[in-house]
Amino acid sequence: MKVFKIGGNVTDKPEALQAFLEDFRRIAGAKILVHGGGREATELSAALGLETKKIDGRRVTDADTLRVCTMVYAGLVNKRIVSGLQAMGCDAIGMAGCDAAVITSVRRPARPVDFGYVGDVSADSVDARRLLALTDAGLVPVLCAITCDNTGQLLNSNADSVASAVACACAGEVPTELIYCFDQPGVLADIADPGSVITEITPENYTQLRESGAVSDGMLPKIDTALAAVRAGVRSVTIRGAANLLQPSGTTISLY
Amino acid sequence: MKVFKIGGNVTDKPEALQAFLEDFRRIAGAKILVHGGGREATELSAALGLETKKIDGRRVTDADTLRVCTMVYAGLVNKRIVSGLQAMGCDAIGMAGCDAAVITSVRRPARPVDFGYVGDVSADSVDARRLLALTDAGLVPVLCAITCDNTGQLLNSNADSVASAVACACAGEVPTELIYCFDQPGVLADIADPGSVITEITPENYTQLRESGAVSDGMLPKIDTALAAVRAGVRSVTIRGAANLLQPSGTTISLY
Repeated sequence: MKVFKIGGNVTDKPEALQAFLEDFRRIAGAKILVHGGGREATELSAALGLETKKIDGRRVTDADTLRVCTMVYAGLVNKRIVSGLQAMGCDAIGMAGCDAAVITSVRRPARPVDFGYVGDVSADSVDARRLLALTDAGLVPVLCAITCDNTGQLLNSNADSVASAVACACAGEVPTELIYCFDQPGVLADIADPGSVITEITPENYTQLRESGAVSDGMLPKIDTALAAVRAGVRSVTIRGAANLLQPSGTTISLY
Repeated sequence: MKVFKIGGNVTDKPEALQAFLEDFRRIAGAKILVHGGGREATELSAALGLETKKIDGRRVTDADTLRVCTMVYAGLVNKRIVSGLQAMGCDAIGMAGCDAAVITSVRRPARPVDFGYVGDVSADSVDARRLLALTDAGLVPVLCAITCDNTGQLLNSNADSVASAVACACAGEVPTELIYCFDQPGVLADIADPGSVITEITPENYTQLRESGAVSDGMLPKIDTALAAVRAGVRSVTIRGAANLLQPSGTTISLY
């Protein structure tokens, strides 16, 4: 099983997305695609006059923002990807977490910080057998990060965390790889130099990379999530460029 | 197999929708729910400053309107229904036509009237075996009327027509019923009198009802579609109130 994640900076660019999907459909074997779409959600919020509130760089999801995220992630972006794959002969099925209850999240407590309608996920959140039944039937699940809790409340989850949770859950059933795809060829030692890809990150050099400031900001939670997935039994975790999916490249996350 | 259709005048009212879903989940056996959502699409269009264009009472779907419809139908309304059903223990799976390619529509020709990104459907559009595989697995497909053609172009289809196409296709595999649910208890002889439900419509009295003006406007295409479904082998077609799903009532469409 291979679990891929792409972010909003791929899904909102028609050519980049098309090129990614062309590569993705060529990947053999069982596969799942998890996607974001935050940039278009921010745009729609702005067009509707909604203020995008962030605390410590993380989006606060009030009721109106949840509506926007549900429309953009589960509607616009999910169906764009699925229809694109279907046109290439890749038998995709778009899903939010509530569909067939594949992901049941837990609403994040309002303290210490109230992020609103946000749902946290873990390997226990995911019905891996159901996802595997779909891939066994030849389908390719395309998952957005809209989930719901066991009361039926829709919640906004982090797409990186969803991808990790899905991979960790599948790893309990079958050998699983997790591939984070973004707009750089891997984790860069120098953000201005695309040639400076760090080929391997371990807990040991991660500490150094953090302390030197080479890796910072938005990359930190991604690497934390990636390391947690390796610890949870995912056989291989890589962070790589969405533009060169078929070439072995990027940054591998390992424990030693 | 029972195929139900609900319109935007049920899906946009929280209490009416909740009551409908409570009844729907009690229906035994294989079932599929097809939904509209036009009213909320019109509202979102207005909030975005898009003009809703209609020709002969039918929505023209330009590129921006298609985006809105995809967001509202496949995102907002579909996931609202699915999460509501899941919270009741009904194992729903939300789908647009592109998902697992269950419905492949044909873009309507631009002549004589260009309705834009509109997709026509028929029984041949529907992969009934795939839908039956899902219901055999205990799932309840919840379908919106966003479809795609075989080039991957998303298209806006009519939800009444989608429900009919799904029922006609399933009727080729298993005995199938089609139930149109709306905000009146059935087709009314007098629109001002909810007690004036016409219990049966046949081609013969339909002609009289049209000529007398008792049945007119938006009800005509619904009855035409219903009659076509009966002719195509759907065992039972009824038009009834969303509010009293479990009582045998409403209008039955038959050939004689």
